[in-house]
Amino acid sequence: MTFQSFRRAHPNVAIVGATGAVGVELIRCLEERNFPLSRLKLLASPRSAGKQMSFRGQPLTVDALDDASFDEVDLAFFSAGSGTSKAYAPKAVAAGAVVVDNSSAFRMDPACPLVVPEVNADSLAAHRGVVANPNCVAIIAAVPIAPLAQAFGLKRVQMATYQAASGAGAAAMEELRASTEAALRDASYEPRVLPHPYAFNLFSHNAEVDLETGYNGEEEKVIAECRRILDRPELPVGVTCIRVPVLRAHAIAMTLEFDRPVSPDEARAVLAKAPGVRIVDDRAANHFPMPSEAQGQGDVLVGRIRQDLSDPSGRSLALFVAGDQLLKGAALNAVQIAERLFAQATAAVA
Amino acid sequence: MTFQSFRRAHPNVAIVGATGAVGVELIRCLEERNFPLSRLKLLASPRSAGKQMSFRGQPLTVDALDDASFDEVDLAFFSAGSGTSKAYAPKAVAAGAVVVDNSSAFRMDPACPLVVPEVNADSLAAHRGVVANPNCVAIIAAVPIAPLAQAFGLKRVQMATYQAASGAGAAAMEELRASTEAALRDASYEPRVLPHPYAFNLFSHNAEVDLETGYNGEEEKVIAECRRILDRPELPVGVTCIRVPVLRAHAIAMTLEFDRPVSPDEARAVLAKAPGVRIVDDRAANHFPMPSEAQGQGDVLVGRIRQDLSDPSGRSLALFVAGDQLLKGAALNAVQIAERLFAQATAAVA
Repeated sequence: MTFQSFRRAHPNVAIVGATGAVGVELIRCLEERNFPLSRLKLLASPRSAGKQMSFRGQPLTVDALDDASFDEVDLAFFSAGSGTSKAYAPKAVAAGAVVVDNSSAFRMDPACPLVVPEVNADSLAAHRGVVANPNCVAIIAAVPIAPLAQAFGLKRVQMATYQAASGAGAAAMEELRASTEAALRDASYEPRVLPHPYAFNLFSHNAEVDLETGYNGEEEKVIAECRRILDRPELPVGVTCIRVPVLRAHAIAMTLEFDRPVSPDEARAVLAKAPGVRIVDDRAANHFPMPSEAQGQGDVLVGRIRQDLSDPSGRSLALFVAGDQLLKGAALNAVQIAERLFAQATAAVA
Repeated sequence: MTFQSFRRAHPNVAIVGATGAVGVELIRCLEERNFPLSRLKLLASPRSAGKQMSFRGQPLTVDALDDASFDEVDLAFFSAGSGTSKAYAPKAVAAGAVVVDNSSAFRMDPACPLVVPEVNADSLAAHRGVVANPNCVAIIAAVPIAPLAQAFGLKRVQMATYQAASGAGAAAMEELRASTEAALRDASYEPRVLPHPYAFNLFSHNAEVDLETGYNGEEEKVIAECRRILDRPELPVGVTCIRVPVLRAHAIAMTLEFDRPVSPDEARAVLAKAPGVRIVDDRAANHFPMPSEAQGQGDVLVGRIRQDLSDPSGRSLALFVAGDQLLKGAALNAVQIAERLFAQATAAVA
């Protein structure tokens, strides 16, 4: 058996973690992009089993994930945390499915391509059953960085993030709403999901911090995954990950140093042709990428394209970007990976 | 007449813009720090004249600012915008007052010291009637940068800001509250004060953007004022200024490059002794500077002290800092300047 093709022209698809924030968006992306599937199976923890959802106007009942869940499944999206992926992705693959995994479980596994389709779809050909969907910041960063790196040669990446609640799941989004509602009433609110007060506040990303280096787990992922996606294992990358009181779109302030001086106009010309990028850079109207415009759509918005004035050599550019964490940062990228897999399978059959 | 001393041992003080967000904090700072004043005069636009406020438990009526406002005034805080400062600060000086100006009107005037007392109080001695209180980001950045620059030699500064509503005044704070309250009810809200939706959103700073360079007015101020405060006219500084949905404390992600490799522990040792700095850098507890803890107090909180991994030379450190925009970023710094002026005047008399 080869994983380069699906067993059916129109695959049977499963979503593990269907009731989560990303799961809900996976269902919507499959609908909106008219993904050519035969049947959709929604899977979740026993706690969510029995829940009614819908797909293409038809009701669908969520099943509890178990060892038999992947019978007859050709393509499985996993979005239920790293533990679930480690336990069940191998079972899905053994049952004949290709897995697109949204967790961090396989992202650094050399056997599992880590894919942003606009950047490194080629690497998909080598998959052995599991394709890893990268960290949301890594995806949103890689989409504009890759074409610039290609055009000008990349020496250094520095980023400060403005990350939305959605990256910590639906419960964190609800905590942002509920705690803000309480703050507006001057009522107290005890954080349950995130470690710090979230209403009108921001804080360093909640991932565990390496006591030796001072970098948190999110920053470690962003650095390692950007290097892998860009195929630059030694690329110097620095990042500070901050959680801001925004619901579902991430933003990133980035400085990129290139091999040679690059003007903002040269960069703009490259980005204007880059897939997945939408330039939002209207200086006269003070209109630049914002979460409110990034959310609910699939492009990475790129603006504030200018020289980094702290590098007199002219080799560094500053950008500000925004992308929907649940869509391009998660569900949409996963479905785009599946579309590429489908195209490869179709090509292989033809 | 010399401006190096006040005419009275306990000066008469005026606040221009007393009803604004910074004006209110100026009154509180003068109270809480027990500033040795004889009389306090509250001044504002005719629209706010007649408003009742209080100082040390006594009611005070706000007067309309006019040409006679500075009779018998020894010290005048201005916080009513650049236009008002340009029009009335010279009149206050002519009437014999020393002006501490919170606007940008005189910040780049060589005759007006631009002062963060922890950094360059020495420059106060040269004032000729007007002392400029720097931009809030420049103040909050300079407090931790200056001692590190002193210890290790500074080559380059890169910053991305997370700026609160208060920097755009009390009306912007109210817009953040009102628009968020509307968003939680799924109601629409038309922005009146800031150019973009603010509820659960963020956007590039609302200052006008230079069409040529792409830098906005806020970023230009931060760069020019950091250079002036640090007395490094050519210091390479890059900054991206972003408005986040936080009420009154700014945060900054910064990378500092030094003349030689510097370890986080060396930097921590310097910052531990730096005036105006409080280290909040508990990796195990994931406890770092946050607006919620920066607000309502006067220190600049400094944490996430670590190597910038994008600089393999080891000469660059990354930090995350937070400070109250209305206090250290405005009113408190102004009152601290006045305290230094008072100490100088007392010393001159003695």
